Amino acid sequence: MRASATAAQLAEAREARASYRAGTVVPTSGVAHGLVQANLIAVPADWAFETLLFAQRNPKPMPVLEVLEAGRVESRLAPGSDVRTDIPAYRIWRDGELAEETADASAAWVEHPDLVSFLIGCSFTFEAGLVDAGIPIRHREAGRNVPMYRTSTACASAGRLGGELVVSMRPIPAGRVADAVGISGRYPAVHGAPVHVGDPSSLGIADLDAPDFGDPPALQDGDVPVFWACGVTPQAAIMASRPPFAVTHAPGHMFVTDVPDAEFLR
Amino acid sequence: MRASATAAQLAEAREARASYRAGTVVPTSGVAHGLVQANLIAVPADWAFETLLFAQRNPKPMPVLEVLEAGRVESRLAPGSDVRTDIPAYRIWRDGELAEETADASAAWVEHPDLVSFLIGCSFTFEAGLVDAGIPIRHREAGRNVPMYRTSTACASAGRLGGELVVSMRPIPAGRVADAVGISGRYPAVHGAPVHVGDPSSLGIADLDAPDFGDPPALQDGDVPVFWACGVTPQAAIMASRPPFAVTHAPGHMFVTDVPDAEFLR
Repeated sequence: MRASATAAQLAEAREARASYRAGTVVPTSGVAHGLVQANLIAVPADWAFETLLFAQRNPKPMPVLEVLEAGRVESRLAPGSDVRTDIPAYRIWRDGELAEETADASAAWVEHPDLVSFLIGCSFTFEAGLVDAGIPIRHREAGRNVPMYRTSTACASAGRLGGELVVSMRPIPAGRVADAVGISGRYPAVHGAPVHVGDPSSLGIADLDAPDFGDPPALQDGDVPVFWACGVTPQAAIMASRPPFAVTHAPGHMFVTDVPDAEFLR
Repeated sequence: MRASATAAQLAEAREARASYRAGTVVPTSGVAHGLVQANLIAVPADWAFETLLFAQRNPKPMPVLEVLEAGRVESRLAPGSDVRTDIPAYRIWRDGELAEETADASAAWVEHPDLVSFLIGCSFTFEAGLVDAGIPIRHREAGRNVPMYRTSTACASAGRLGGELVVSMRPIPAGRVADAVGISGRYPAVHGAPVHVGDPSSLGIADLDAPDFGDPPALQDGDVPVFWACGVTPQAAIMASRPPFAVTHAPGHMFVTDVPDAEFLR
């Protein structure tokens, strides 16, 4: 480890996970500032190779932080954690359809003991870098979840898994766009630099005010919409590819780890 | 693509592959200067997830450039290529033992039609950067293969696959070591910066003159031994983990692609 979390950060992360385990359902943007948060996708073992290959071929939306093989539920990124319960909200998918949203996914592991879990980097990590540089995070200021959009950009497929890129959007004051690009680019393990700046229509996004996931954006005068590859991309792949079963986090409701963001700086 | 290969580079790469396909067996260091070369490991489909996971957990020795799913033998990195024949020399592994070395691995794909092939970045790529900076490549000057060593450093295991790190070594004039670190560090997709500089014994290497793969080194006065993570690492994992069957390139005899090294610059 190149950096250490402070005792206060660790205490906040552990309290957050304990609270989610006990049933609290809240978005995690801003929780345990400076510690990495992760997206989850868990699939039956039969789909694990294609999921990992899909990630390898699409590293910007799916930077793999950790893989928990079948039978493992404790993340090395958070000792004592349990990925079945420590995320505030889960989605259960059957044949590509959203079957259920739940605060406790334990039953999914009972039904499918061979689930392989993938923790994927999350843009909330570089948000800390943006905040530290004085760049406003509009959805936090507005007390909202970050807006996320399905795009018309195809990911590289892997066997049975394919689908379109999902992006998150942050309105950035025009004079700080270059800084936001530079800062997020230093975190390639958490989506890195934006995939797109400024023109929603060329990503196939018809209406910025109607995101596919999360809350509507809170643009201010002089803001430019900036789009980053998003860890919800595997959920779009589930919808498009229809694996028989999958578990994911609910968008914006992440797995909070004990690992400092600085671990993933380059 | 951010960079284009020249017509002369492409002609050299294609002639080299055609020559290897016809049976020529030679090390590939220095061939098609400026184009990426790759290590090969091919395993039955049942071992594909663990192999990809082993790579994900050990990105310095195993930076994955491409995965060819079962049934695919043409690399996207070299249109018209055939990974069964276009490498100068292959190794066939049975139960972790080297069973055969051959110039044509077609029979392996007949025996195991479900082989999944992994092309892994090779340090020959950043050698081009060292050469361009005027840093001598001693094994090339001496007309030898690069020396490679098994070390006492354990890789992170993945299911049934584990083993020790293998390193390649280049003697670098002491005054150019920092430059060699900086230049190779710009190529994270091909092993990146050295894992070790100067002291073979702390890697568990008893005798620099007796490499486990390749040829003995050609150190000159004032040279320091510099060690990079090596794409032969999966071969050490095969020896340690004993999958029933595997195909690899023979050390130093790589897959020559059509892709410019600059594609992998960061």
